[in-house]
Amino acid sequence: MAAPVVLVQGASRGLGLQFCRHILTRRAAAVVIATCRSPEDAAELRVLTAQHAGRITVLRMDVNREDDVRRAAHTVRDTVTRIDLLLNAAATLPAEGGRERRPGGGRLREGETSLRDVTAEGVISTLTTNAVGPLLVGKYFSGLLQKGGGGFGQQPAERARQHSGIMVNITAKVGSIGDNGLGGWYSYRMSKAALNMATRNLSIELGRSRPKVVCVSVHPGTVDTDLSRPYHKNVPKDKLFSAEVSVNHLMSIVDALNMEKTGKAYNWDGTELPW
Amino acid sequence: MAAPVVLVQGASRGLGLQFCRHILTRRAAAVVIATCRSPEDAAELRVLTAQHAGRITVLRMDVNREDDVRRAAHTVRDTVTRIDLLLNAAATLPAEGGRERRPGGGRLREGETSLRDVTAEGVISTLTTNAVGPLLVGKYFSGLLQKGGGGFGQQPAERARQHSGIMVNITAKVGSIGDNGLGGWYSYRMSKAALNMATRNLSIELGRSRPKVVCVSVHPGTVDTDLSRPYHKNVPKDKLFSAEVSVNHLMSIVDALNMEKTGKAYNWDGTELPW
Repeated sequence: MAAPVVLVQGASRGLGLQFCRHILTRRAAAVVIATCRSPEDAAELRVLTAQHAGRITVLRMDVNREDDVRRAAHTVRDTVTRIDLLLNAAATLPAEGGRERRPGGGRLREGETSLRDVTAEGVISTLTTNAVGPLLVGKYFSGLLQKGGGGFGQQPAERARQHSGIMVNITAKVGSIGDNGLGGWYSYRMSKAALNMATRNLSIELGRSRPKVVCVSVHPGTVDTDLSRPYHKNVPKDKLFSAEVSVNHLMSIVDALNMEKTGKAYNWDGTELPW
Repeated sequence: MAAPVVLVQGASRGLGLQFCRHILTRRAAAVVIATCRSPEDAAELRVLTAQHAGRITVLRMDVNREDDVRRAAHTVRDTVTRIDLLLNAAATLPAEGGRERRPGGGRLREGETSLRDVTAEGVISTLTTNAVGPLLVGKYFSGLLQKGGGGFGQQPAERARQHSGIMVNITAKVGSIGDNGLGGWYSYRMSKAALNMATRNLSIELGRSRPKVVCVSVHPGTVDTDLSRPYHKNVPKDKLFSAEVSVNHLMSIVDALNMEKTGKAYNWDGTELPW
C-alpha cells in the first residue's frame, strides 16, 4: 500500500506541531507535509526534519492570502499525488483592544472580555485566519483529498460508503453557539462558529459524489499551548491537556471516522458538540 | 410616555425600508432613525421622509467602516437620548466568483454554488457587512439601548426582569448550521452563523446587569426583495412573502419579546431555529 500522506496546516507550534510529531513517531508508514507562515522561524519543525529525514516536508503557506494557498497547493501537487488526512490547525486570538497577538509578544490579556474591546480590525483578522483560511485550504486541497487512498479512519466494507480523504478543522467549544453561556471572546467565538459552518458545507459538497471526503470539526479540550496559556488559571489540572495528550485524543477520533460521522463537531472525548 | 425610538440599520431597501414603513404607519407614537450607506441614493426613504415629516431622520452609516459607525452613533446621541428598538437589516451576498453584488447590477447568479466560486475577497466582504457590521452597531449603540424606555416587547410585572431596549439581527435559515442539508452559499451561511454567535454574545453581555437589553436573531422567511429575487424559482407561492408580510410577522415576534426570550434565533412564525 502507498504511504498515507498527511498535510498539517499551521504546523510550526502548538497542536499543529504536535500532530506532525505524532504522525512521524506513531505512524511509521506516513509522510507529512507541514505548512506554516514562516518556515524560517519554525525551529522545532527543523528539528523534526532532521530526526525524520525524507518523511517530512516543510512548506510556506499563509492562509490569510488566497494566492499563497493557491501557490502552495501547486507546489504540493508537484510533490505528492494525494492527501489522506488534512488538519487545519492555525488559529489566532485578537489581543484586548483588537490587536493580533504575536507569539512570544509578552503577557497580553487576549480575547475581548467585553464589547469595549471589540474592533473591526481584530474581528476581521480573526475571521480571516480562523475561518476563511481553512475554507481556502478546502478549496485548493480538496482535489488532492479526493485522490486520497483512505489511509485514515474506518472504512466500511461497502465500497460506495468508503472515503478517500479526511479533513479535520480544529474548532473550539467556545465556538459552539448553543453551549455559549459566558459570552466574551467575540472574534474567536464568531470565527469558530463560521468555521463550523464551513466544515458543514464542505462535508456536504465533498460527501455528495465519489470519491468522498470526510470533513469534521474537533475541539481539542483546554490545551497548554502558547496561544492559550494566559487563560488557564481556573482550569482544573486534570482538564488541562498537554498538546501531546490532546493530539492522542484527537487522533483516536480520526481513527474512528467514516462517512457516517462526517459534517459534525466532536469534543476531544468523541462526544458530539452542539452547534 | 416618551415616544419610542426605533433605529433601522440598512433602511434604504428591502426589509429595512419596510421596517421603517411599518413603524411609521402602524406605530403612530414612534420615531425612526433610518441609516444606510448612501442616503443620496435612497429615493424611497426620501418619500417616507416627505410623508412622515418630523418622525423619520435619515442618516449615513456604512457598517463596513468602524469609524463611520462611531461617527453615526455620535450624531444619533445628539438627536435622541435613547433607542427602544434597533434592527440590523443590511446584508450582502457575493456574486458567483466572489464579487459583491451591486443593486440593479443585472441578473448575476449569486451565492457560491460550490467551492470553485469561493474567493477570500467575497467571503471576507460578506462576513464584514453581515456579521462584523451588526456587532459594531451593537458596540456603539448598546449604550443608547440601555437607556431605552422599554417601548417594545412584553414587560413582565417584576421590574428586575424588565428590559430597556431590544436589538434584532436579521439572520437567515441558511445560517443555521444544524439545519444545513444542502450546502453551497459558503460566504452567506458563514456570515449568518457568525452573526448568530454575535447575537448570543451580545445577549449575554447586555443581559447581565440592569438595564437589560434583549438581543435576538430572526429569520424573515423567503422574502421577495432585490437581494433574494434571483433564487425564488423553486419556492412555493404561499411561502414567498412580500417584505410587508414578512415584517408583519417579525414585528409580531418583537411585540412578544422579553428577557426570557433573549439570546435565541427565531423563525418568522415565532418557532425557535436551531443554531
